[in-house]
Amino acid sequence: MTTSRVTIKEVAARAGVSKGAVSLAFNHKPGLSEATRDRIFRAARELGWAPNPTARTLAGSRVDVVGLAVCRPARLLGLEPFYMDFVSGVESVLIERNCSLLLRLVRNVEEEVGLQEAWWRGRQIGGSILVDFRADDPRVAAVERLGMPVVAVGHPSLTGTLTSVWTDDATAVTEAVRYLAALGHRRIARVGGAAALGHTAMRTAAFDEAARTLELAGAWQVTTDYSGEAGARATRSLLTAAPPDRPTAIVYDNDIMAVAGLSVAAEMGLGVPHDVSLLAWDDSQLCRLTRPTLSAMSHDVHGFGAEAARTLFGVITGEGPGSHPVPTPVLTPRGSTAPPGV
Amino acid sequence: MTTSRVTIKEVAARAGVSKGAVSLAFNHKPGLSEATRDRIFRAARELGWAPNPTARTLAGSRVDVVGLAVCRPARLLGLEPFYMDFVSGVESVLIERNCSLLLRLVRNVEEEVGLQEAWWRGRQIGGSILVDFRADDPRVAAVERLGMPVVAVGHPSLTGTLTSVWTDDATAVTEAVRYLAALGHRRIARVGGAAALGHTAMRTAAFDEAARTLELAGAWQVTTDYSGEAGARATRSLLTAAPPDRPTAIVYDNDIMAVAGLSVAAEMGLGVPHDVSLLAWDDSQLCRLTRPTLSAMSHDVHGFGAEAARTLFGVITGEGPGSHPVPTPVLTPRGSTAPPGV
Repeated sequence: MTTSRVTIKEVAARAGVSKGAVSLAFNHKPGLSEATRDRIFRAARELGWAPNPTARTLAGSRVDVVGLAVCRPARLLGLEPFYMDFVSGVESVLIERNCSLLLRLVRNVEEEVGLQEAWWRGRQIGGSILVDFRADDPRVAAVERLGMPVVAVGHPSLTGTLTSVWTDDATAVTEAVRYLAALGHRRIARVGGAAALGHTAMRTAAFDEAARTLELAGAWQVTTDYSGEAGARATRSLLTAAPPDRPTAIVYDNDIMAVAGLSVAAEMGLGVPHDVSLLAWDDSQLCRLTRPTLSAMSHDVHGFGAEAARTLFGVITGEGPGSHPVPTPVLTPRGSTAPPGV
Repeated sequence: MTTSRVTIKEVAARAGVSKGAVSLAFNHKPGLSEATRDRIFRAARELGWAPNPTARTLAGSRVDVVGLAVCRPARLLGLEPFYMDFVSGVESVLIERNCSLLLRLVRNVEEEVGLQEAWWRGRQIGGSILVDFRADDPRVAAVERLGMPVVAVGHPSLTGTLTSVWTDDATAVTEAVRYLAALGHRRIARVGGAAALGHTAMRTAAFDEAARTLELAGAWQVTTDYSGEAGARATRSLLTAAPPDRPTAIVYDNDIMAVAGLSVAAEMGLGVPHDVSLLAWDDSQLCRLTRPTLSAMSHDVHGFGAEAARTLFGVITGEGPGSHPVPTPVLTPRGSTAPPGV
C-alpha cells in the first residue's frame, strides 16, 4: 500500500467535495459537517490517500509538529518542576497554532543528533526546540549541515550560529551572592545542577568570581542531578561541619532541592533563616507553599518556554539568526533569607 | 514535490547501499558510518523520497509515534506533579522502543475527538493514550468508529469497550476515610479534583458512602482545579469554622494541594497533626520533603504511565480488549496524621 498514484483531486471527486474541503478535513479545521468529514475520510481510505506533510510544510502554509528531545532519565523528568513548566509554556503557544509537540527522551547528545536528523529528513517535524547545551555541542554543526529550523535554548556562547533564547545566568548568580553578602553572610554555598550542562558551568564560574570579588571567608559549590534527594544529601553534607566551617547561606539551582534543603535543616535542628538562609531558583509555586516561604531567584519558566516556541516559529517563517534574551531571574525575598544569626 | 514515483530501491541504488541500509538510516538505527548515512540522506533528498510511515506501521514492524492529548490549561499542566510523572512513565517505555510521544493540549473533548481522528487518518500516530474520562465520553464511540488502537486511562465503567488501564479509586477513598476514622476522627473533609472528571465523581460517591457507613458526625467535600492555590483556598475555608464545626482531618486528591493545606494550617496557627490531620494523594517526592512529612495514599504514577504505554503497544500488536487494573493506592502513614488532639 502506497500513497503514490492518488491525488487530492481524486479524493475530492470521490467524496463529491472540493479539494479545499479535503484539506480542511485533514488539517482538522472547522466548517465541515460530521457527515462530510466522514465521507472525505472514507474516500481517502478507500483510495489509500494520505496528505503529504512535506508538501504542506514546503508550501509554507503551516507547521503541524515541532520536536523536543530531552536527555534526562525518565524518572527525573517527572520530578523536576522546570521541564513541565517549560513544556507547558511551549504548549501555550502551540495550542494557538493547532500544533503538537513531538517529545522524545534520549540517552545522550549523539542519539539526539541522529534523532533530529531522522525527524527532519523523515519530515516528521517542521522544526525543533533544542535544550541543555554543552560546551562544543555537536548539535550546532549538525543543524547547520541539515539546514533545519531550530531554536537553541542556551547562552549564545554555547549555541554558535543558531538562533538562541537564553537567560543571563551569570548576572543572576552574581546578584544572588551579592544579596546574601549584603545581608552579612561571609560563608556561602551553592548546590548546583548537572555538571555537564553549559549553564551550570556558567553559574559555577560566576559564583567563583563573585566569591573572589566579595572576598568571602568561605565558598562551597557542589553539583547534583537536580533531584530532591541529591539536594538533601548536599545540604546535609554542607551543614554537618561545626559553625565556623559551615555555610550560613545556601543558594540552590532549582526549587525542589531548596525545599529538600529546608527539610534537612529542620531535621538537623537548624532554624531557617536564623541558623542558615536558603535561596531557591526558578520560583515555582512550591516556594510559596513551604514554611517559611522560600526566597528565590524568580524566573518565569512558563514564559521562557513560550518565548522559545514563538522564536522557533519565527525561524520557520524565515527570520534570520538572532539572540533573544529573556528577562534575567530577579530576587524575590521571602521568609528563608535573613542576616546570619549571631 | 511528491513522494510518488521513487522507491526505496532507487534510493539504495543511488547511494550505493542496500535497501536495508536505507531503512536503518531512516529508522535511526545504529550500524552505519556517518559518511554512509550522509550519502543515503543525500540520495533520498535528491530523489525527493521520504519513508512512508503508514507502510512501516502496516507492516507491523514498528510504531514511531503515539499520541497523547490533554485537556487542561497550559498553566495548570506545569504545576501539577501528576501529569509530568505520568508522562515520564510513558516515556520510560517509549525510549526502549525508539518511539516518540506526540503531545497536544486541547480545549475540550470535542476538539480531542477531531484531533485524534486527524492524527489517525493522517497517519501521524500508531495509536493513542486517552486520559481524563468523563461520563458518556464521546471518545469511546469515535474510537470504535475509527478502529484506531488506543488505551483508555480510566475506570471500565467510563471507558466502554476500550482497553482500559485504571486504579480502583473508590476502594482507595474508602480506605483513606476508614483509616482516619480508626484514628478517632469523626469530622472529615475531602478536597477533591476537577468536578467534570469521571474519577472525581467516583471518589466523591465513595467518600459519601464511607461517611454514611461510618456514621461520621461531619463530612465535607469540595472540588477544585487541582492547583495549590485552589487547595489553599479550600483548606482555609474548611478550617475557618470554630472547632466543633471544623474538620479534624482532610484528605486531598493530589499532593500539591496537601502541601498547600499544610502551609494554610501553619498560617492559621493550627498544628499538624495535633489540630488537624492531612492526607495527600499520589505521593510524589514532595510528601517526604515537608515538615511534618505528609501521610499519603501512595500511587505509583510513573508506573501507571508505563503500564498505559505497555498496554497500548499490546493493543497495537493486536491484543484483544482488556481491563488492566494497576495496584490500588495504599496508605503510607507519615507525620501529618494522628488521632485528633483533645
